Amino acid sequence: VALRRADKRVGILDADITGPSIPRLFGLTDRPAMTKDGGIRPVVSRGGIPVISINLMLEDEDQPVIWRGPLVAAAIKQFFSEVAWGELDYLLIDLPPGTGDAPLTVLQSLPLDGIILVTSPQVLAQMIVRKAQHMAESLNVPILGLVENFSTYRCPHCGQVSLPFGDGGVAEMVDAAGIDLLGRLPIDPAVAAAGDAGTIETYRADWVEAMA
Amino acid sequence: VALRRADKRVGILDADITGPSIPRLFGLTDRPAMTKDGGIRPVVSRGGIPVISINLMLEDEDQPVIWRGPLVAAAIKQFFSEVAWGELDYLLIDLPPGTGDAPLTVLQSLPLDGIILVTSPQVLAQMIVRKAQHMAESLNVPILGLVENFSTYRCPHCGQVSLPFGDGGVAEMVDAAGIDLLGRLPIDPAVAAAGDAGTIETYRADWVEAMA
Repeated sequence: VALRRADKRVGILDADITGPSIPRLFGLTDRPAMTKDGGIRPVVSRGGIPVISINLMLEDEDQPVIWRGPLVAAAIKQFFSEVAWGELDYLLIDLPPGTGDAPLTVLQSLPLDGIILVTSPQVLAQMIVRKAQHMAESLNVPILGLVENFSTYRCPHCGQVSLPFGDGGVAEMVDAAGIDLLGRLPIDPAVAAAGDAGTIETYRADWVEAMA
Repeated sequence: VALRRADKRVGILDADITGPSIPRLFGLTDRPAMTKDGGIRPVVSRGGIPVISINLMLEDEDQPVIWRGPLVAAAIKQFFSEVAWGELDYLLIDLPPGTGDAPLTVLQSLPLDGIILVTSPQVLAQMIVRKAQHMAESLNVPILGLVENFSTYRCPHCGQVSLPFGDGGVAEMVDAAGIDLLGRLPIDPAVAAAGDAGTIETYRADWVEAMA
């Protein structure tokens, strides 16, 4: 939602080094340029969002990044400190699932205001959330809230809404854990289509406006 | 499907060290015992499947495993070589998404018959598949085929089938890449429910029988 607010300057650091998807979502293919003093210039999206991702630096986006953890950690730190981000109000850092090297590096080494958890509706998600919560607590990083993804789906034939992944009680769980539920996002084929087309910035829906 | 065949002995090694979910899916909570010669005895599911996962070794399944890559690699190798698997026809190794330490360790260090790719229907998935394909080729491990997950959904209200995540042309892509499409799995709330209840082994559906 913050991405939409013209009065806020937002950048995106894709810290999912071994499974980067941000450039594809935004339709970015340019290589990052160098600044005069040897820094890395982020690639700017059509909507004006500076983005950095390992995928922007590969000859071919299909190339796999089969790096061991220490290299992953080094890349993330470099993306933070050696990229000419300019003046930003927010820097969003996209992380892979789990509690591996990328999240550990970001939580340990970067100055964070907090983390936002994203889960599916399953009960299984609750275990993952609790793991993340313990990780955040042990590294002393606040949790800003949780987003439940893939919550509901409106049938294109009859228009009725259902819960394809069930209701694992995520709302009750975050409530009990004292975490803010920032939003429950529906499954919308238009999101997948916009992501595939590289036009995720132009995606519009009532539920997005409602969160703005 | 092989899990169902009474004539085949299958084991499961959960190599998703930083986001393990296999024990929850099978409802396993016992700790692995030690063998007389210091090996690790896998925990056996109600259906008779030996399973090993880092989550079975934690005091509390909510504990996060915030390990750097080298520890992740060591755990996976240990799960393979120091677990008393017994006589098996198949050992399934569950991996996290991406091309990080866990997949790299498994592809480099374990004697594999091949890998099975699992993706969602988005075009974005094609990039991920190509990355995995390049990784498999460079490490000389055959790809046994691809499974498209979350392909279709039947509305519980009207019974009509739709494509919540669109059709990214995965079928055409695997065809062009010379990869076998092993199956297209529907979204079924009963799968989420069975996973949440720890009874994934007892899940039954027509589409599963059709693949058997």
